[in-house]
Amino acid sequence: MLPIAIDAMGGDHAPDEIIAGAHAAVDELGVEIVLVGRPELRDKIGDLELIEASEVIAMDADPAASVRTMKDSSLVRAAEAVRDGRASAMISAGNTGATMGSALLRMGRIKGVKRPAIATPIPVPGSTPTILLDAGANAECQPEWLLQFAQMGATFAAERFGISEPRVGLLSIGEEPGKGNSLVKQTYPLLDAADALKVGTFIGNVEGRDLMTDAVDVVVTDGFTGNVALKTLEGGMRTLVGALFEAFGSTEEAKAAAEVLMPQLLPLYSQVDPDSTGGAMLLGVDGICMISHGSSSSTAIVNAVRVTRELQDVDIVERLRSAVG
Amino acid sequence: MLPIAIDAMGGDHAPDEIIAGAHAAVDELGVEIVLVGRPELRDKIGDLELIEASEVIAMDADPAASVRTMKDSSLVRAAEAVRDGRASAMISAGNTGATMGSALLRMGRIKGVKRPAIATPIPVPGSTPTILLDAGANAECQPEWLLQFAQMGATFAAERFGISEPRVGLLSIGEEPGKGNSLVKQTYPLLDAADALKVGTFIGNVEGRDLMTDAVDVVVTDGFTGNVALKTLEGGMRTLVGALFEAFGSTEEAKAAAEVLMPQLLPLYSQVDPDSTGGAMLLGVDGICMISHGSSSSTAIVNAVRVTRELQDVDIVERLRSAVG
Repeated sequence: MLPIAIDAMGGDHAPDEIIAGAHAAVDELGVEIVLVGRPELRDKIGDLELIEASEVIAMDADPAASVRTMKDSSLVRAAEAVRDGRASAMISAGNTGATMGSALLRMGRIKGVKRPAIATPIPVPGSTPTILLDAGANAECQPEWLLQFAQMGATFAAERFGISEPRVGLLSIGEEPGKGNSLVKQTYPLLDAADALKVGTFIGNVEGRDLMTDAVDVVVTDGFTGNVALKTLEGGMRTLVGALFEAFGSTEEAKAAAEVLMPQLLPLYSQVDPDSTGGAMLLGVDGICMISHGSSSSTAIVNAVRVTRELQDVDIVERLRSAVG
Repeated sequence: MLPIAIDAMGGDHAPDEIIAGAHAAVDELGVEIVLVGRPELRDKIGDLELIEASEVIAMDADPAASVRTMKDSSLVRAAEAVRDGRASAMISAGNTGATMGSALLRMGRIKGVKRPAIATPIPVPGSTPTILLDAGANAECQPEWLLQFAQMGATFAAERFGISEPRVGLLSIGEEPGKGNSLVKQTYPLLDAADALKVGTFIGNVEGRDLMTDAVDVVVTDGFTGNVALKTLEGGMRTLVGALFEAFGSTEEAKAAAEVLMPQLLPLYSQVDPDSTGGAMLLGVDGICMISHGSSSSTAIVNAVRVTRELQDVDIVERLRSAVG
């Protein structure tokens, strides 16, 4: 198997956490990694392989313009490595839009795919995560794209989590058919058609409150709504977890009591921690492109590598190709 | 001051919790209440006044059709009581769409208001809530409506929470101007214009992660996105709080430790509990219409009455009238 290319320059904690994660992935998982980044990284990466790239697309740079003009950026070079058969997949914790743009530009789309979508796992304590897509690739969508998101999302959930018949819901503001905005109303009959999904079952409209529950496996929406929902949930979790830690540290008694609870709380925390999920996958490009959270630690990178390898083992791109074919 | 009309038939726990809440509001707050509901309630409500209504609009009924055909429903009668000067405001924990429809039909709009919007307070631990609007009244919106939502939302935040210069953000998927869907891109310049807001300051695009923080006071969006964000947050909180309680009860040691932490955790819980917020207000109709959560307990009703009375004291409808005038 070809090595997995990791963008060493992407993410809030790049390059140190990314490099540490790459080393840990090699040690723990026995996979081959090639880093992509500035030549001066050579001194820091030990015996890891490096594809040199002289430029870095900043986290807040304009994605389209950056990808077009920065041809020697780590992101574009990473996608190129996959295209040219130097790597089997790419992983980045960098600028999401530019990651997507690089993958789309260099790998191209799976034949028949109208638009790629970001599929993000939403943690569900005690159950498999819910796949939310599109989590931000396309701010404006057509009903036919959402049909393909459903097809790809169901296949992804089946392959990644071993769910034999994933339940696919359409995100709306009421469960009855006919509730929602015009995109939802136009998409509903496409998903409800008998032959819409080769894998999975359409269960109708679902609501935001279902995302973090076991009521649905795949939630389909446009990239604007999906990104708002994802970030709303992340922000809410961060606020609540922060307030909890503050409460736990507020008195000596509370500190001692919190200590006792840690064996119960840590597994829960690790279930809702974005670092644990292995990141999102860009579905619909002709190759594997994994998008890690911007705040990724070395642990997040190890998890992303592990998930990437699992997806390679099930030949995910071929599965997606036949899902939309 | 005229009594406040409460729909005794609306909500998952109607009529008992609603009646209990009405009694408690009279006792604790010294306000006058008139209940609206089925004649047979007379036996249950003691010395409270009752406006009789023979019909009940179910929680899952089609709002538009119900309001049109069920003229003797508790919701329509409650709105009528405000219009006819028998009540000073209405409160319902019932079908949200039908509450809105009844208020719109019987009270009418404030002159110049294009569409009313639901303004929902999102709890922020340690700070004033963030007002999210539209939280579900209009699934599809025009940029001009969002401008009015901003004007009304800023005035509402100022009057309700005493924020002298509320920070108003436009919900999007990136902070830079130009990020978002076409509605956001068209709305941005309207909000950014020098004379857009008489009260408050436009601070640009905000993201879902800002909702439950002190970074912004009023978040403006269309009713589809707003409702998805609200329900996503509610669902996420419920899941996390449920998982916490499970962890707390998992062993005898954990139970004892959780007991010690309760003085710290209860205030936090009450801050994020929807029953504490007093509910949402339908901004833009020519009268006060408060929308309580469907799961409202008697405590939620007392809080809704308290907030209603506070809003009456600041003459909120006149404030909103001048905000859009």
